[in-house]
Amino acid sequence: MTSKHLSLNNIKIDDPFWNGVCELVRTEVIPYQYEALHDRVEGAEKSYCIENFRKAGAVTAALRRGETVPVYPVDKWQYTDDNCDENAFHGWVFQDSDAYKWLEAVGYSLMNHPDAALERKAKEVVATICAAQLENGYLDTLYIINDRSRIFTNLRDFHELYCFGHLVEGAISFFRATGDRRLLDAACRFADLICETFGEGKKRGYGGHEIAEMALVKLYEETGEKRYLDLAAFFVNERGQRPYYFDAEHGVTSKGEAYHYNQAHRPVRQQNEAVGHAVRGVYLYSGMADVARYTEDNELYQSCQKLWDNIENKKLYITGGIGATVDGEAFSFNYDLPNDLAYSETCASIGLIFFARRMAELNATARFGDVAERALYNTVLSGMGEDGKSFFYVNPLEVNPEASHKDSRKFHIKPVRQKWFACACCPPNLARLISSLGEYAFAENEDTFFIHQYLGARVNTRFGEVRVQSDYIENGTVTVSAENPVNLALRIPSWCSNFTISAPYKVKDGYAYVESVTTVSVQFDCEPKLVRCSNRVRANVGKAAVTMGPLVYCAESVDNGDNLQMLILDRDTEFERDGEYLIVDGWRETPQDSLYFHDTEIQKIPCKIKLHPYYRWGNRGENEMQVYLRVQ
Amino acid sequence: MTSKHLSLNNIKIDDPFWNGVCELVRTEVIPYQYEALHDRVEGAEKSYCIENFRKAGAVTAALRRGETVPVYPVDKWQYTDDNCDENAFHGWVFQDSDAYKWLEAVGYSLMNHPDAALERKAKEVVATICAAQLENGYLDTLYIINDRSRIFTNLRDFHELYCFGHLVEGAISFFRATGDRRLLDAACRFADLICETFGEGKKRGYGGHEIAEMALVKLYEETGEKRYLDLAAFFVNERGQRPYYFDAEHGVTSKGEAYHYNQAHRPVRQQNEAVGHAVRGVYLYSGMADVARYTEDNELYQSCQKLWDNIENKKLYITGGIGATVDGEAFSFNYDLPNDLAYSETCASIGLIFFARRMAELNATARFGDVAERALYNTVLSGMGEDGKSFFYVNPLEVNPEASHKDSRKFHIKPVRQKWFACACCPPNLARLISSLGEYAFAENEDTFFIHQYLGARVNTRFGEVRVQSDYIENGTVTVSAENPVNLALRIPSWCSNFTISAPYKVKDGYAYVESVTTVSVQFDCEPKLVRCSNRVRANVGKAAVTMGPLVYCAESVDNGDNLQMLILDRDTEFERDGEYLIVDGWRETPQDSLYFHDTEIQKIPCKIKLHPYYRWGNRGENEMQVYLRVQ
Repeated sequence: MTSKHLSLNNIKIDDPFWNGVCELVRTEVIPYQYEALHDRVEGAEKSYCIENFRKAGAVTAALRRGETVPVYPVDKWQYTDDNCDENAFHGWVFQDSDAYKWLEAVGYSLMNHPDAALERKAKEVVATICAAQLENGYLDTLYIINDRSRIFTNLRDFHELYCFGHLVEGAISFFRATGDRRLLDAACRFADLICETFGEGKKRGYGGHEIAEMALVKLYEETGEKRYLDLAAFFVNERGQRPYYFDAEHGVTSKGEAYHYNQAHRPVRQQNEAVGHAVRGVYLYSGMADVARYTEDNELYQSCQKLWDNIENKKLYITGGIGATVDGEAFSFNYDLPNDLAYSETCASIGLIFFARRMAELNATARFGDVAERALYNTVLSGMGEDGKSFFYVNPLEVNPEASHKDSRKFHIKPVRQKWFACACCPPNLARLISSLGEYAFAENEDTFFIHQYLGARVNTRFGEVRVQSDYIENGTVTVSAENPVNLALRIPSWCSNFTISAPYKVKDGYAYVESVTTVSVQFDCEPKLVRCSNRVRANVGKAAVTMGPLVYCAESVDNGDNLQMLILDRDTEFERDGEYLIVDGWRETPQDSLYFHDTEIQKIPCKIKLHPYYRWGNRGENEMQVYLRVQ
Repeated sequence: MTSKHLSLNNIKIDDPFWNGVCELVRTEVIPYQYEALHDRVEGAEKSYCIENFRKAGAVTAALRRGETVPVYPVDKWQYTDDNCDENAFHGWVFQDSDAYKWLEAVGYSLMNHPDAALERKAKEVVATICAAQLENGYLDTLYIINDRSRIFTNLRDFHELYCFGHLVEGAISFFRATGDRRLLDAACRFADLICETFGEGKKRGYGGHEIAEMALVKLYEETGEKRYLDLAAFFVNERGQRPYYFDAEHGVTSKGEAYHYNQAHRPVRQQNEAVGHAVRGVYLYSGMADVARYTEDNELYQSCQKLWDNIENKKLYITGGIGATVDGEAFSFNYDLPNDLAYSETCASIGLIFFARRMAELNATARFGDVAERALYNTVLSGMGEDGKSFFYVNPLEVNPEASHKDSRKFHIKPVRQKWFACACCPPNLARLISSLGEYAFAENEDTFFIHQYLGARVNTRFGEVRVQSDYIENGTVTVSAENPVNLALRIPSWCSNFTISAPYKVKDGYAYVESVTTVSVQFDCEPKLVRCSNRVRANVGKAAVTMGPLVYCAESVDNGDNLQMLILDRDTEFERDGEYLIVDGWRETPQDSLYFHDTEIQKIPCKIKLHPYYRWGNRGENEMQVYLRVQ
């Protein structure tokens, strides 16, 4: 059964768990990022983001005046004072997207929480961006500043279509929040240029980093202009076709091995396994699901389903993380989910939530919301420190700080969150997701209101106001009350073995359907559990993790002493709650100082093991962390 | 108690376990390598080794005739048809050493097994080498061919002193076997040039890849020329002194972080932890032990002891492998011994055996021989395929072929042995060790004959002939019979809990001392055992390995089916021998297809697990392998 999420304008979040997080994003992350975009954060690497738009604006103005403008090389991923002219573009090739992601988050935030000062700042940023746009609608500061003649000549590497996608998403959010059309108009002009440039009988290219696909569908939804949907479908369908566009673009003939990274190794309808850069992957799959929906393309939907199955069943960390290898920040092979070498990028889990929402709206089956929930409450939340100013890009399931410092294989595994840095993809992505959570929670169709995620909120539905009161994380209770009798579809979380619903219901595909109610109370029993991982995953044999509701727990050495690998969980443990902690029974092995010895029994003494929600780990200085513990 | 090994001239190996291995080296490895040096192995990468000596010989002849000789760049580690002139040096910077290692192995082989045809071939190679030597004694084809003006200007990277060291070792072996002094004279002339160039008041350099230290001591032993010992001591003592020679050589000022790789980050007497490239490390430590012995430098000996302790107690795989990370082929931090990411280079274990012999001869304590034995019977033997023509450079303790093919973190882990290739350090190193095993087994001092390793052999000692008959690997029995009554020191292997000796003995430092016997029988009980690893090693908690005598066993999927991680050893297992196999009791878990599930008990069924000696793994095609198995 299909549904469609409601626009954020119709949703007012009020949730005991999420209020604090949303407020942190509003009061810390968004202002901090504004400063970062303007290179005003002391001690942080420079972003150059706004500076690039200003430089590009000067170029655009000069071109308008008919002046000659210098040319600089476009030949690398990152431009620094060390490798380029001071007047050239600076930062990463995708640096523009930081401003767009920030504006997207600001738009969502303003919808929930009007803030005239913030809106004023955002409008200044918008003005700076719009001033950079070329007459023909082109808008990417790397090429505007450095070399206009090379526009659209390296789609594989240089992120023009990626920045375009974020422009569209930012513009729509900003328009919906403020009614200010300037950025949306700029996005449409750029989109029109792209429509003129790419398609059947034109350039047969597509972006090296996907996102334009889903952004164009959103622009179609916003404007009703079918050409945007058509272009999204073209990008999706052209991807991976032979001869490879990326080959032609770079004057080579390849077998496409290298294009696994970009999911462009074969046509998307022939892709059954999630491969390559994980963020790119889930952005593509999200766009595929969007196109499948609006073009009623069942074959494409089936491809989405196969890719989903592969991720959910073979490539997903228990924390909702994806991308098991740092090499290419990529999916590894099936069942390869190392804990201590994980990449599990925050952005990738955010993208997985995008994909999950689209799949859930195409087919209300609980597994999609389950995975989104896993990702949201664990990897995504883990991405942000309690201060709102420090971030994990990588979300491992096991950390030994000594290894992070001394072992080059684990240099990507940071034992504490980092400050904003130049390649700051994750913080603004986090901000835009958290600020728009409502869009991931609620949906509707002609006759039913869907709760895919349990957030306390007031929602203006087509059936009148629906109010959700939620203590979902604390104790699993949710109450829904509606202005008018409404049909409800309530996702039954996969972690819940027992639940009660205070009205008659039927279960289908993991959703409880309740007909025509004005109030219903739900109790999901969220007792703690030991969770096992398939023994096809080599890293986790003989181990278990602890979860309670959607939260995955972990041991930190600040609570349990060093050498977490010496802890063993008792499979018959009682669980005790102590504030945010779970206390479980187990043993601690006596340290064995001989490297090799013949005794067959290791001494161990009973102990209590203190577990902390995974998303809160690493907020108390550098220490060991493990999600999985041995179990006996 | 000190001892000194006997020269190979005095030892004739005849051992049921080793005869076949030695014969394989003699009949397959040495001839195969001769072809490889001459670039006559079909399908193998070119070595260019002999070709370089010929080119250098032409340069030397031209210089002698006063002709001008072209100059080519000396600027990289590997010179190929793609990156250099066809008349320039080709191959790796250390390519000369392949010839020297081959000649060393040939020398050892000829001492055991005269072979006129082989001797003739070797003499041709020697002539080719000698013809390349410059008038002043310099002999390294990279610089002779490419640029004489840059000799000794990049000791850090370009291996001149390393090739020199192998020249010396090859020359001594060849001289001892044949009485042909040509190569030894060439080595002395080069050594004399190095003595003139380096030392107090001269260049204060030392090699980026150690070996010259131990080679110079050997040359001192052979010639009695004290200047060689002095230079060895200079190289040892100068290493890591501030200001760094490598800094000056490269015009930089560093804190020496990068010189951990070369063990040149601080003076050797301040080094307590084995770090950096593992082969370099153990070659240095061997040279340190040599210098400590002949200079009676107790402080230096204590440094050797600390470095030994660190390796033995914190950085040694159960297989005698060292070097836990591929990054720099290096030691990792203490207790970091991953099974599936190991480097554990064959050459590093060979170097560890060099170090162990020197330590055992300085102080007859069983631990040195124990570690050497571990390395020899597992990692070193594993390095060579049953065909004598395929080799492991890397010796992991766990292999999943899918990971080796698909996971870039494990591309260095080969699931089957490789043919000879250009950077062929390990095969000739294996050949020279196996061909000279006797030197590692037997030693003597004024009143005692030491058996550090149990090899069947006839040995000409200062006390007359001693004959060792050994079924050590098969059943732990050794019989020693002597022409005249002799005092024996017999290492009691650490794996042996029960042994009987047919004569009165006293145990000291793990050696059984037997006085004045003409015959003695020893029975070491070598029943199979479960061996645990310290729980400070995170990779091995909850697991055990199986050993019998010095042999470590492993499971291969060709014997046990795929998914070895699903096997569990029964800690109370009986052991059954089936030819070369050990059969143990255990369970096989039922494959769990759900990625995550709440059941706390995994189904498992009893099974027999078939274990193979580690050194024989990978001889039956590509398959999974694990040394450690979970144990319950």
